[in-house]
Amino acid sequence: MSGTNRFMNAAIEEAIRAKERDEVPIGAVVVLDGEIVGRGGNRTRERNDVTAHAEIVALRMACEALGQERLVGADLYVTLEPCTMCAAAISFARIRRLYYGARDIKGGAVESGVRFFNQPTCHHSPDVYSGFAETTTSRLLVDFFQAKRDGAFSGKG
Amino acid sequence: MSGTNRFMNAAIEEAIRAKERDEVPIGAVVVLDGEIVGRGGNRTRERNDVTAHAEIVALRMACEALGQERLVGADLYVTLEPCTMCAAAISFARIRRLYYGARDIKGGAVESGVRFFNQPTCHHSPDVYSGFAETTTSRLLVDFFQAKRDGAFSGKG
Repeated sequence: MSGTNRFMNAAIEEAIRAKERDEVPIGAVVVLDGEIVGRGGNRTRERNDVTAHAEIVALRMACEALGQERLVGADLYVTLEPCTMCAAAISFARIRRLYYGARDIKGGAVESGVRFFNQPTCHHSPDVYSGFAETTTSRLLVDFFQAKRDGAFSGKG
Repeated sequence: MSGTNRFMNAAIEEAIRAKERDEVPIGAVVVLDGEIVGRGGNRTRERNDVTAHAEIVALRMACEALGQERLVGADLYVTLEPCTMCAAAISFARIRRLYYGARDIKGGAVESGVRFFNQPTCHHSPDVYSGFAETTTSRLLVDFFQAKRDGAFSGKG
Protein backbone atom coordinates (compact mmCIF):
# COMPACT_ATOMS: atom_id res chain seq x y z
CA MET A 1 0.00 0.00 0.00
CA SER A 2 1.42 3.42 -0.87
CA GLY A 3 2.15 5.90 1.91
CA THR A 4 -0.65 8.15 0.67
CA ASN A 5 -3.20 5.31 0.87
CA ARG A 6 -1.93 4.22 4.26
CA PHE A 7 -2.21 7.71 5.75
CA MET A 8 -5.58 8.42 4.16
CA ASN A 9 -6.80 5.11 5.60
CA ALA A 10 -5.60 6.23 9.03
CA ALA A 11 -7.61 9.45 8.58
CA ILE A 12 -10.65 7.35 7.58
CA GLU A 13 -10.19 5.26 10.76
CA GLU A 14 -10.33 8.50 12.77
CA ALA A 15 -13.52 9.49 10.93
CA ILE A 16 -15.09 6.13 11.82
CA ARG A 17 -14.11 6.61 15.49
CA ALA A 18 -15.71 10.06 15.40
CA LYS A 19 -18.92 8.49 14.10
CA GLU A 20 -18.83 5.97 16.96
CA ARG A 21 -18.73 8.94 19.38
CA ASP A 22 -21.73 10.43 17.53
CA GLU A 23 -19.58 13.22 16.10
CA VAL A 24 -19.61 14.25 12.43
CA PRO A 25 -17.35 11.59 10.83
CA ILE A 26 -14.30 13.51 9.66
CA GLY A 27 -10.77 12.39 10.50
CA ALA A 28 -7.23 13.68 10.01
CA VAL A 29 -3.61 12.68 10.54
CA VAL A 30 -0.38 14.71 10.52
CA VAL A 31 2.65 12.95 9.05
CA LEU A 32 6.29 13.95 9.46
CA ASP A 33 9.16 11.92 7.98
CA GLY A 34 6.86 9.00 7.22
CA GLU A 35 5.45 8.79 10.77
CA ILE A 36 2.06 9.83 12.13
CA VAL A 37 2.74 12.53 14.73
CA GLY A 38 -0.84 13.73 15.28
CA ARG A 39 -4.27 12.23 14.64
CA GLY A 40 -7.85 12.97 15.49
CA GLY A 41 -11.49 13.10 14.56
CA ASN A 42 -14.15 15.70 15.20
CA ARG A 43 -14.69 16.30 18.93
CA THR A 44 -16.80 19.46 18.87
CA ARG A 45 -19.73 17.95 20.79
CA GLU A 46 -17.68 16.00 23.33
CA ARG A 47 -15.45 18.97 24.14
CA ASN A 48 -18.04 21.75 23.74
CA ASP A 49 -15.50 23.37 21.45
CA VAL A 50 -16.45 24.61 17.99
CA THR A 51 -12.77 24.66 17.07
CA ALA A 52 -12.28 20.91 17.73
CA HIS A 53 -12.46 19.93 14.06
CA ALA A 54 -10.44 16.85 13.06
CA GLU A 55 -7.68 18.92 11.44
CA ILE A 56 -7.22 21.15 14.48
CA VAL A 57 -7.28 18.21 16.92
CA ALA A 58 -4.55 16.53 14.83
CA LEU A 59 -2.48 19.71 14.39
CA ARG A 60 -2.56 20.49 18.10
CA MET A 61 -1.57 16.94 18.98
CA ALA A 62 1.37 17.10 16.56
CA CYS A 63 2.53 20.50 17.89
CA GLU A 64 2.32 19.22 21.46
CA ALA A 65 4.12 15.96 20.65
CA LEU A 66 6.94 17.81 18.87
CA GLY A 67 7.03 20.76 21.29
CA GLN A 68 6.85 23.28 18.49
CA GLU A 69 4.37 25.83 17.20
CA ARG A 70 4.89 25.16 13.51
CA LEU A 71 5.01 21.90 11.57
CA VAL A 72 7.45 22.73 8.78
CA GLY A 73 7.85 19.72 6.46
CA ALA A 74 4.76 17.92 7.80
CA ASP A 75 1.80 16.77 5.69
CA LEU A 76 -1.87 16.66 6.65
CA TYR A 77 -4.33 14.00 5.48
CA VAL A 78 -8.01 14.71 6.05
CA THR A 79 -11.16 12.98 4.82
CA LEU A 80 -12.99 16.17 3.75
CA GLU A 81 -12.02 19.48 2.15
CA PRO A 82 -11.02 21.74 5.09
CA CYS A 83 -13.31 24.60 6.16
CA THR A 84 -12.24 28.25 6.37
CA MET A 85 -11.07 27.97 10.00
CA CYS A 86 -9.02 24.82 9.34
CA ALA A 87 -7.53 26.07 6.06
CA ALA A 88 -6.17 29.11 7.90
CA ALA A 89 -4.85 26.93 10.77
CA ILE A 90 -3.13 24.65 8.20
CA SER A 91 -1.48 27.72 6.69
CA PHE A 92 -0.37 29.06 10.10
CA ALA A 93 1.12 25.66 10.98
CA ARG A 94 3.18 25.75 7.74
CA ILE A 95 1.90 22.35 6.55
CA ARG A 96 3.86 21.27 3.45
CA ARG A 97 1.31 19.09 1.66
CA LEU A 98 -2.43 18.77 2.17
CA TYR A 99 -4.23 15.61 0.99
CA TYR A 100 -7.99 15.39 1.28
CA GLY A 101 -10.90 13.22 0.25
CA ALA A 102 -14.29 14.57 -0.76
CA ARG A 103 -14.91 18.16 -1.74
CA ASP A 104 -17.15 20.27 0.55
CA ILE A 105 -18.98 22.78 -1.62
CA LYS A 106 -21.06 24.11 1.30
CA GLY A 107 -18.31 24.70 3.83
CA GLY A 108 -14.94 24.05 2.18
CA ALA A 109 -12.31 26.74 1.71
CA VAL A 110 -9.65 25.18 -0.54
CA GLU A 111 -11.27 24.62 -3.95
CA SER A 112 -14.65 25.88 -2.66
CA GLY A 113 -15.72 29.04 -0.82
CA VAL A 114 -13.01 31.56 -0.05
CA ARG A 115 -10.23 29.41 -1.62
CA PHE A 116 -8.01 30.65 1.17
CA PHE A 117 -4.69 29.35 -0.15
CA ASN A 118 -5.08 31.52 -3.25
CA GLN A 119 -5.71 34.76 -1.33
CA PRO A 120 -3.26 37.60 -0.68
CA THR A 121 -3.90 37.36 3.10
CA CYS A 122 -2.68 33.74 3.04
CA HIS A 123 1.04 33.87 3.76
CA HIS A 124 1.84 30.16 3.39
CA SER A 125 0.08 27.69 1.06
CA PRO A 126 0.59 23.93 1.15
CA ASP A 127 0.70 21.85 -2.02
CA VAL A 128 -2.82 20.46 -2.36
CA TYR A 129 -3.85 16.97 -3.53
CA SER A 130 -7.55 16.15 -3.47
CA GLY A 131 -10.07 13.47 -4.40
CA PHE A 132 -8.55 10.61 -2.36
CA ALA A 133 -10.99 7.86 -1.30
CA GLU A 134 -13.81 10.20 -2.29
CA THR A 135 -16.49 7.52 -2.32
CA THR A 136 -15.61 6.15 1.14
CA THR A 137 -15.20 9.57 2.78
CA SER A 138 -18.40 10.99 1.27
CA ARG A 139 -20.38 7.85 2.09
CA LEU A 140 -19.43 8.13 5.77
CA LEU A 141 -20.90 11.64 5.91
CA VAL A 142 -23.97 10.94 3.80
CA ASP A 143 -24.85 7.85 5.89
CA PHE A 144 -24.27 9.74 9.16
CA PHE A 145 -26.62 12.59 8.27
CA GLN A 146 -29.16 10.18 6.74
CA ALA A 147 -29.22 8.19 9.99
CA LYS A 148 -29.66 11.46 11.96
CA ARG A 149 -32.63 12.42 9.78
CA ASP A 150 -34.18 8.94 10.01
CA GLY A 151 -33.70 9.03 13.80
CA ALA A 152 -35.33 12.46 13.98
CA PHE A 153 -38.32 11.38 11.91
CA SER A 154 -38.82 8.19 13.90
CA GLY A 155 -38.52 10.10 17.18
CA LYS A 156 -35.18 8.43 18.05
CA GLY A 157 -32.97 11.42 17.21
CA MET B 1 -18.13 54.15 31.26
CA SER B 2 -20.32 52.51 28.62
CA GLY B 3 -20.45 48.71 28.44
CA THR B 4 -18.68 48.80 25.08
CA ASN B 5 -15.78 50.82 26.49
CA ARG B 6 -15.58 48.65 29.59
CA PHE B 7 -15.42 45.41 27.62
CA MET B 8 -12.98 46.78 25.04
CA ASN B 9 -10.79 47.93 27.93
CA ALA B 10 -10.90 44.39 29.33
CA ALA B 11 -9.77 43.11 25.92
CA ILE B 12 -6.94 45.68 25.93
CA GLU B 13 -5.89 44.46 29.41
CA GLU B 14 -5.64 40.94 27.97
CA ALA B 15 -3.51 42.30 25.09
CA ILE B 16 -1.16 43.95 27.61
CA ARG B 17 -0.88 40.68 29.55
CA ALA B 18 -0.04 38.89 26.29
CA LYS B 19 2.75 41.41 25.68
CA GLU B 20 4.10 40.76 29.19
CA ARG B 21 4.33 37.06 28.23
CA ASP B 22 6.19 38.07 25.04
CA GLU B 23 3.22 37.07 22.89
CA VAL B 24 1.79 39.27 20.11
CA PRO B 25 -0.37 41.74 22.09
CA ILE B 26 -3.93 40.93 21.05
CA GLY B 27 -6.70 40.36 23.60
CA ALA B 28 -10.36 39.34 23.58
CA VAL B 29 -13.34 38.91 25.88
CA VAL B 30 -16.67 37.12 25.41
CA VAL B 31 -19.67 38.80 27.04
CA LEU B 32 -23.06 37.24 27.77
CA ASP B 33 -25.86 39.13 29.52
CA GLY B 34 -23.49 41.91 30.57
CA GLU B 35 -20.93 39.55 32.14
CA ILE B 36 -17.51 38.48 30.89
CA VAL B 37 -17.70 34.68 30.44
CA GLY B 38 -14.43 34.14 28.57
CA ARG B 39 -11.23 36.15 28.19
CA GLY B 40 -7.76 35.66 26.84
CA GLY B 41 -4.75 36.93 24.97
CA ASN B 42 -2.53 35.30 22.41
CA ARG B 43 -0.84 32.16 23.76
CA THR B 44 0.53 30.64 20.56
CA ARG B 45 4.16 30.59 21.74
CA GLU B 46 3.51 29.50 25.30
CA ARG B 47 1.23 26.66 24.25
CA ASN B 48 2.96 25.70 20.99
CA ASP B 49 -0.45 26.02 19.41
CA VAL B 50 -1.02 28.05 16.26
CA THR B 51 -4.74 28.09 17.03
CA ALA B 52 -4.29 29.83 20.41
CA HIS B 53 -5.22 33.30 19.13
CA ALA B 54 -6.88 35.60 21.66
CA GLU B 55 -10.36 35.11 20.16
CA ILE B 56 -10.12 31.31 20.22
CA VAL B 57 -8.70 31.25 23.77
CA ALA B 58 -11.65 33.42 24.89
CA LEU B 59 -14.26 31.42 22.92
CA ARG B 60 -12.99 28.12 24.30
CA MET B 61 -13.02 29.46 27.86
CA ALA B 62 -16.61 30.70 27.43
CA CYS B 63 -17.79 27.39 25.94
CA GLU B 64 -16.14 25.47 28.75
CA ALA B 65 -17.52 27.78 31.45
CA LEU B 66 -21.05 27.52 30.06
CA GLY B 67 -20.80 23.82 29.11
CA GLN B 68 -22.06 24.47 25.62
CA GLU B 69 -20.68 24.31 22.12
CA ARG B 70 -22.30 27.49 20.83
CA LEU B 71 -22.53 30.95 22.33
CA VAL B 72 -25.89 32.15 21.04
CA GLY B 73 -26.54 35.72 22.25
CA ALA B 74 -22.91 36.33 23.27
CA ASP B 75 -20.72 39.18 22.01
CA LEU B 76 -16.98 39.15 21.33
CA TYR B 77 -14.66 42.12 21.89
CA VAL B 78 -11.18 41.88 20.38
CA THR B 79 -8.42 44.44 19.96
CA LEU B 80 -7.65 43.61 16.30
CA GLU B 81 -9.68 42.64 13.24
CA PRO B 82 -9.98 38.82 13.42
CA CYS B 83 -7.98 36.65 11.00
CA THR B 84 -9.54 34.05 8.68
CA MET B 85 -9.31 31.24 11.25
CA CYS B 86 -10.87 33.32 14.03
CA ALA B 87 -13.61 34.82 11.82
CA ALA B 88 -14.75 31.30 10.94
CA ALA B 89 -14.60 30.20 14.61
CA ILE B 90 -16.67 33.28 15.58
CA SER B 91 -19.25 32.27 12.98
CA PHE B 92 -19.32 28.62 14.16
CA ALA B 93 -19.80 29.78 17.78
CA ARG B 94 -22.84 31.85 16.68
CA ILE B 95 -21.49 35.08 18.21
CA ARG B 96 -24.17 37.79 18.05
CA ARG B 97 -22.06 40.94 17.88
CA LEU B 98 -18.39 41.40 17.11
CA TYR B 99 -16.59 44.55 18.28
CA TYR B 100 -12.99 45.12 17.30
CA GLY B 101 -10.28 47.75 17.42
CA ALA B 102 -7.75 48.29 14.65
CA ARG B 103 -8.13 46.94 11.14
CA ASP B 104 -5.64 44.28 9.98
CA ILE B 105 -5.13 44.71 6.25
CA LYS B 106 -2.43 42.01 6.07
CA GLY B 107 -4.20 39.23 7.92
CA GLY B 108 -7.77 40.31 8.72
CA ALA B 109 -10.84 38.57 7.31
CA VAL B 110 -13.78 40.80 8.23
CA GLU B 111 -13.38 44.05 6.26
CA SER B 112 -10.04 42.87 4.81
CA GLY B 113 -8.96 39.70 3.00
CA VAL B 114 -11.64 37.08 2.42
CA ARG B 115 -14.37 39.14 4.18
CA PHE B 116 -15.65 35.84 5.49
CA PHE B 117 -18.95 37.07 6.94
CA ASN B 118 -20.05 38.19 3.46
CA GLN B 119 -19.35 34.84 1.79
CA PRO B 120 -21.89 32.15 0.80
CA THR B 121 -19.94 29.52 2.79
CA CYS B 122 -20.46 31.58 5.97
CA HIS B 123 -23.68 30.29 7.54
CA HIS B 124 -23.89 32.73 10.48
CA SER B 125 -22.64 36.33 10.51
CA PRO B 126 -22.42 38.49 13.63
CA ASP B 127 -23.26 42.19 13.57
CA VAL B 128 -19.89 43.92 13.24
CA TYR B 129 -18.74 47.14 14.93
CA SER B 130 -15.17 48.24 14.32
CA GLY B 131 -12.69 51.04 15.02
CA PHE B 132 -12.88 50.98 18.84
CA ALA B 133 -9.79 52.27 20.66
CA GLU B 134 -7.94 52.08 17.36
CA THR B 135 -5.00 54.22 18.45
CA THR B 136 -4.38 52.24 21.67
CA THR B 137 -4.78 48.81 20.07
CA SER B 138 -2.61 49.65 17.05
CA ARG B 139 0.06 51.27 19.21
CA LEU B 140 0.41 48.12 21.31
CA LEU B 141 1.18 46.10 18.17
CA VAL B 142 3.42 48.69 16.50
CA ASP B 143 5.49 49.14 19.69
CA PHE B 144 5.76 45.35 20.19
CA PHE B 145 7.11 44.69 16.71
CA GLN B 146 9.34 47.79 16.84
CA ALA B 147 10.88 46.52 20.09
CA LYS B 148 11.39 43.09 18.48
CA ARG B 149 13.19 44.66 15.53
CA ASP B 150 15.31 46.89 17.77
CA GLY B 151 16.20 43.81 19.85
CA ALA B 152 17.15 41.87 16.74
CA PHE B 153 19.36 44.67 15.41
CA SER B 154 21.10 45.12 18.74
CA GLY B 155 21.65 41.38 19.05
CA LYS B 156 19.21 41.06 21.97
CA GLY B 157 16.36 39.42 20.00
